[in-house]
Amino acid sequence: MKVKVSRRAHFNAAHRLFRPDWDEQQNNRVFGKCNNPNYHGHNYELIVGVTGEIDEVTGFVMDMKVLKDLIRNEVEEALDHKNLNLEVPEFRELNPTAENIAVVIWNKLRPHIDGEHALEVVLYETPRNFVTYTG
Amino acid sequence: MKVKVSRRAHFNAAHRLFRPDWDEQQNNRVFGKCNNPNYHGHNYELIVGVTGEIDEVTGFVMDMKVLKDLIRNEVEEALDHKNLNLEVPEFRELNPTAENIAVVIWNKLRPHIDGEHALEVVLYETPRNFVTYTG
Amino acid sequence: MKVKVSRRAHFNAAHRLFRPDWDEQQNNRVFGKCNNPNYHGHNYELIVGVTGEIDEVTGFVMDMKVLKDLIRNEVEEALDHKNLNLEVPEFRELNPTAENIAVVIWNKLRPHIDGEHALEVVLYETPRNFVTYTG
Amino acid sequence: MKVKVSRRAHFNAAHRLFRPDWDEQQNNRVFGKCNNPNYHGHNYELIVGVTGEIDEVTGFVMDMKVLKDLIRNEVEEALDHKNLNLEVPEFRELNPTAENIAVVIWNKLRPHIDGEHALEVVLYETPRNFVTYTG
Amino acid sequence: MKVKVSRRAHFNAAHRLFRPDWDEQQNNRVFGKCNNPNYHGHNYELIVGVTGEIDEVTGFVMDMKVLKDLIRNEVEEALDHKNLNLEVPEFRELNPTAENIAVVIWNKLRPHIDGEHALEVVLYETPRNFVTYTG
Amino acid sequence: MKVKVSRRAHFNAAHRLFRPDWDEQQNNRVFGKCNNPNYHGHNYELIVGVTGEIDEVTGFVMDMKVLKDLIRNEVEEALDHKNLNLEVPEFRELNPTAENIAVVIWNKLRPHIDGEHALEVVLYETPRNFVTYTG
Repeated sequence: MKVKVSRRAHFNAAHRLFRPDWDEQQNNRVFGKCNNPNYHGHNYELIVGVTGEIDEVTGFVMDMKVLKDLIRNEVEEALDHKNLNLEVPEFRELNPTAENIAVVIWNKLRPHIDGEHALEVVLYETPRNFVTYTG
Repeated sequence: MKVKVSRRAHFNAAHRLFRPDWDEQQNNRVFGKCNNPNYHGHNYELIVGVTGEIDEVTGFVMDMKVLKDLIRNEVEEALDHKNLNLEVPEFRELNPTAENIAVVIWNKLRPHIDGEHALEVVLYETPRNFVTYTG
Repeated sequence: MKVKVSRRAHFNAAHRLFRPDWDEQQNNRVFGKCNNPNYHGHNYELIVGVTGEIDEVTGFVMDMKVLKDLIRNEVEEALDHKNLNLEVPEFRELNPTAENIAVVIWNKLRPHIDGEHALEVVLYETPRNFVTYTG
Repeated sequence: MKVKVSRRAHFNAAHRLFRPDWDEQQNNRVFGKCNNPNYHGHNYELIVGVTGEIDEVTGFVMDMKVLKDLIRNEVEEALDHKNLNLEVPEFRELNPTAENIAVVIWNKLRPHIDGEHALEVVLYETPRNFVTYTG
Repeated sequence: MKVKVSRRAHFNAAHRLFRPDWDEQQNNRVFGKCNNPNYHGHNYELIVGVTGEIDEVTGFVMDMKVLKDLIRNEVEEALDHKNLNLEVPEFRELNPTAENIAVVIWNKLRPHIDGEHALEVVLYETPRNFVTYTG
Repeated sequence: MKVKVSRRAHFNAAHRLFRPDWDEQQNNRVFGKCNNPNYHGHNYELIVGVTGEIDEVTGFVMDMKVLKDLIRNEVEEALDHKNLNLEVPEFRELNPTAENIAVVIWNKLRPHIDGEHALEVVLYETPRNFVTYTG
């Protein structure tokens, strides 16, 4: 009996979308207002889903308290109230689009999740834009 | 690295559920209050999801601004503030149930989405009723 | 110890904004797409608030079940799945704007609420547009 | 043309997470505050999804009114305003975790859904914790 | 320049509505399913609002982190994962209706809020039922 | 018959809370993570409420389309995708707390609202923190 358990968390951060190897005109054409060199920011809402068999002893796929702590330690500590471009090593050479942030979060969590469990990351950049990554 | 990017939009419209080849009694039995010949209406909330590889150059699966404009031009222009039965050609002989509206929206968007990308349409008829179509 | 108790309900309906004594051009200028003669519609979300002293015997300002039934009988029965312009007598000569619908709902409920209690109606025409009327 | 139709419902209930064959210390270590012997409770939000072909005659995969009534009769009647541990037979020897409640709900609904339709149950224990079961 | 700052929090709890001096029949007539002697429960969502002048030095009416900690220490510690009837002294002889819980929370917070600030408590018992108390 | 009409909008921005006349230690003590010199950011959700008599001719207190355009021109143009500290003149010497942003928005809108109408600004810095200013 496979069940997906999902936990919602949130962090906020500043970022800027651009490629350092492009000139300003090309960055503006592709990234528009998101290329503001003074940064803008978001309240990111994160939903982490872990799919696996229900443990017959506990009735849990994974203890939600453990998942909550894992998200806090691995994701919120790294990203909350940060400038993603300047302060998060993964984005030193990677454009912090919602897509790439979701992949980075997935990679941060994957080593800490039971290898037999599937992992899904849903990341809301705004209430109207969100992305889903399942590895 | 395949990611689904999702964009939320909305439109409102009037509609009526009925079959012209049925008598009123049969229409009422099957469609209930939704068969009101004077129409009723909804705020439809739409979530369009596009799944594909992240472009390594931009970090995008698909530019959200392009997706936003596409939804406005192909869906909102055609359906917003409309009477679906009377004013939208696709429903001239097709009952505008949430299921059928989702399929119509998917068909409107599909030609404009990169052929290698998967397309998903989620349509909320009310906050309590919604449908999902993936082609 | 005065407390406001609030109950959320919902109904959906078709409507059209226009004045019969104006020509089409003037109606379009003022009411825009809302003047579509074939109607459009909304999922209206309604919050009814009743303010009064807590009854020391029950701990209630007003029994929520009673308020729920009152909203169903007086508001949902009259407005749900209706064409407001054609089927609701109050709007025969009154433009069914959100403002006017809120006043009509308030007037429908007021006689059924304890005279010592204040009454508030909040009506969401869409998740982005709403109105508040307190008499 | 397969579509998933989804219907949202809700119930509230008291529960306690524990194993009678464990001592209090072990129950507290694994279940924490959820092991309170005097119970705590939740507003459970439930989304039931049914996937199948659109019926060409009605335009429905499944009549939402039928699904709504089914959820009320099979799920809400059994669980709403109940103590899950004491009053719901399925949990007499089964820990009422969100995972197990979702499976119990799925099993209650499955016999009443067309065998050619897939069934999905999403259960929110809180707005931040939810589970998904598809059989 | 008076501003109201509001902070959202949440807790969940079991409760039962009844009067010990009434017989079962009368309790059932007034409190219905909420009189279940085995308890039921809710996810309470709480919004605490504090109104006062903006401090010209900090730009704060009240530091949200202080308000967050205050709610955790005074409200969540006392009510989260509790049986309100059995474990919360204020409800030993007071029916734990939403109205009374809001007043109890207000009384717990009031001594810790600057005397020149107004205090408002909004308590959602469910997403559809909520109460507001301002002292 | 006075009614409040409310319109929801949104913008996102980067900001930093600090006083230039304080040293880093004092800024950190008072503003914590919000003092990050590299900035962080939010999706601000804005609700603008205008209270006045219903115009008997139109049924409007104020045309929502006019209010929507006013918010876009006066607020979104000035604040969306901006660094509040560096790019918005009002915050050159004013700490961009939620309280102060709400007052700035109110001051931007007030001259464009009918003098007989009351104006209210509700600003969500996050879904959990928000402020209300009524002048």
